[in-house]
Amino acid sequence: MTNAPSRTELSALGEFGLIERLASRIVPIQPSTVKGIGDDAAIIDPQGLHQVITTDMLVEGVHFDLAYMPLKHLGYKAVVVNLSDVYAMNAEPRQIIVAVALSNRFPVEAVDELYEGMQLACANYGVDLVGGDTTSSTSGLVISITAIGAAKQEDIIYRSGARTNDLLVVSGDLGGAYMGLQVLEREKAVFKETGAQPDLHGHDYIIERQLKPEARKDIIELLRKMEVKPTSMIDISDGLASEALHLAHASGLGVRIFDDKIPIDPTTYSTARDFNLDPSTCALNGGEDYELLFTIALGDHEKVKGNPSITVIGHMADADRSVALVDKNGGEHALQAQGWDALLKRT
Amino acid sequence: MTNAPSRTELSALGEFGLIERLASRIVPIQPSTVKGIGDDAAIIDPQGLHQVITTDMLVEGVHFDLAYMPLKHLGYKAVVVNLSDVYAMNAEPRQIIVAVALSNRFPVEAVDELYEGMQLACANYGVDLVGGDTTSSTSGLVISITAIGAAKQEDIIYRSGARTNDLLVVSGDLGGAYMGLQVLEREKAVFKETGAQPDLHGHDYIIERQLKPEARKDIIELLRKMEVKPTSMIDISDGLASEALHLAHASGLGVRIFDDKIPIDPTTYSTARDFNLDPSTCALNGGEDYELLFTIALGDHEKVKGNPSITVIGHMADADRSVALVDKNGGEHALQAQGWDALLKRT
Repeated sequence: MTNAPSRTELSALGEFGLIERLASRIVPIQPSTVKGIGDDAAIIDPQGLHQVITTDMLVEGVHFDLAYMPLKHLGYKAVVVNLSDVYAMNAEPRQIIVAVALSNRFPVEAVDELYEGMQLACANYGVDLVGGDTTSSTSGLVISITAIGAAKQEDIIYRSGARTNDLLVVSGDLGGAYMGLQVLEREKAVFKETGAQPDLHGHDYIIERQLKPEARKDIIELLRKMEVKPTSMIDISDGLASEALHLAHASGLGVRIFDDKIPIDPTTYSTARDFNLDPSTCALNGGEDYELLFTIALGDHEKVKGNPSITVIGHMADADRSVALVDKNGGEHALQAQGWDALLKRT
Repeated sequence: MTNAPSRTELSALGEFGLIERLASRIVPIQPSTVKGIGDDAAIIDPQGLHQVITTDMLVEGVHFDLAYMPLKHLGYKAVVVNLSDVYAMNAEPRQIIVAVALSNRFPVEAVDELYEGMQLACANYGVDLVGGDTTSSTSGLVISITAIGAAKQEDIIYRSGARTNDLLVVSGDLGGAYMGLQVLEREKAVFKETGAQPDLHGHDYIIERQLKPEARKDIIELLRKMEVKPTSMIDISDGLASEALHLAHASGLGVRIFDDKIPIDPTTYSTARDFNLDPSTCALNGGEDYELLFTIALGDHEKVKGNPSITVIGHMADADRSVALVDKNGGEHALQAQGWDALLKRT
């Protein structure tokens, strides 16, 4: 920030003042939202549909670093990671409810930025922010968002529905968010040591993947248009290997992933090489790509073939449950979840 | 704890291991729970009812102090404060979803205790724990719970439905949780200074009000049995004054509360006197009692009169919107919300 931005202390507003300030800017658009902010609870009319519900908590110093994560992006991302879970059930997200803990180092203007990001995500995905809790924290920023979605019972897709020989398909490309994080961490270290301004040149794509991910609403719509209903689905938050293992485990099957089929963007690839990292490993274990990983019946292959938004990367295997990465020579390597284990990441 | 309790590091389990450990002990009982823990989201069948949804976040050092709050009680209370909001809409809580951030100073056994408390509350209120997020924290413990309830559209009670001359009614008694906190804080200070064991003798009731509050499910059932439908309702989390102001504000009315009608338990009263505090002030501004505050039509007075579980403490006044406490001589004193403002409470 430049030109000495104005700073209003949170204590000048108080909790109720802050809630009123935020509520005045938030207008529900979902017909299913009966009552948003302003009572003991929000009220939703399910309109005859099943409701899906999911929550994700983001903790400063664990999931984000405000040294390079602008608050508006953080707000946007905090919403998107939850919506991604709703899409992964083949449901339509409709409402979110937001709990935020803030220390007094954040002025009202910072809270505004955070909520601007959340509201932008809500607008982009047609979701209402219907309530929440705002409280103080003794140190860092904690954001906990719960997303509610709706779907017909028969449309919901579980992790457990995959069958032997189903094709394993992924949307978009993988490893970018992880490599974006590596670049940001490197530039932060350089800045700390030398004071040099960050050089993010040529890394726009992977930095956007890290700072402003999107949930794949478009893929859900595409599949519907193609008349392909996946047999199982999950979103990629912890890395391809970890999520493929979840699908295999839940479905009681094994899985084969072909290394040379994994979609990796050229920027991700070259940056991984610059960091002396194996691009496939970044895709398998990097996480935070928020792409969709799903299985489809072999008979649906013709329908999806050649679509640039999705890639067939493998198939489900017999119930011996072996889970492997297949290299270009046909060699099989046991896959292990080495995804981002938030409980092991301590500072 | 005594006899050197066993300590298992969280890192020995990891996030997925911890989730599996917790999930194996959690069995859904609600017919409306289609899918609990184990997919990208939980799934609820609303069974033709509207859904109410509310969230509360509890932060270590702000909302609780583990020096005197056992983890099992904390888990219980974290659930109850959310269920209280659902009852305040005249709805039946059915599911909760839990996000927890933990630092590595907590062993697996501590997490078990916390969840035992949450599961006990779930069992007592017939609610399912259907999902959540478990992550690490750089310092303290943060618990964010979202509760989902169900009600017929026509049964839902808003804050905004009160009419002029409606009676203002409160369940149970007030100020106890606040005085319990004062005793616990005093004994903590004495322990720090002298090492003396806490003397909680004679304070059981108010300490239980603070450490193990209950949500007033029984009052919702009682009102239904009496065939009394409140015109407006709220739960008392921030203190009587603050909540009465919310009802008045939302309904566009004023309110009169008669000082000598406010129900205060003898233990609360005498402890307040010992602390040189005005018992009425503790009831008005103490908070955390989780009683229900509601308004009923004047015509329903006969139905509720004499019931020991509820007390008529005032009435809604004309639209001049003046909000006052009436003393025993008929003098009126403007009421202000001096409830527990979590944003001002910094350590």
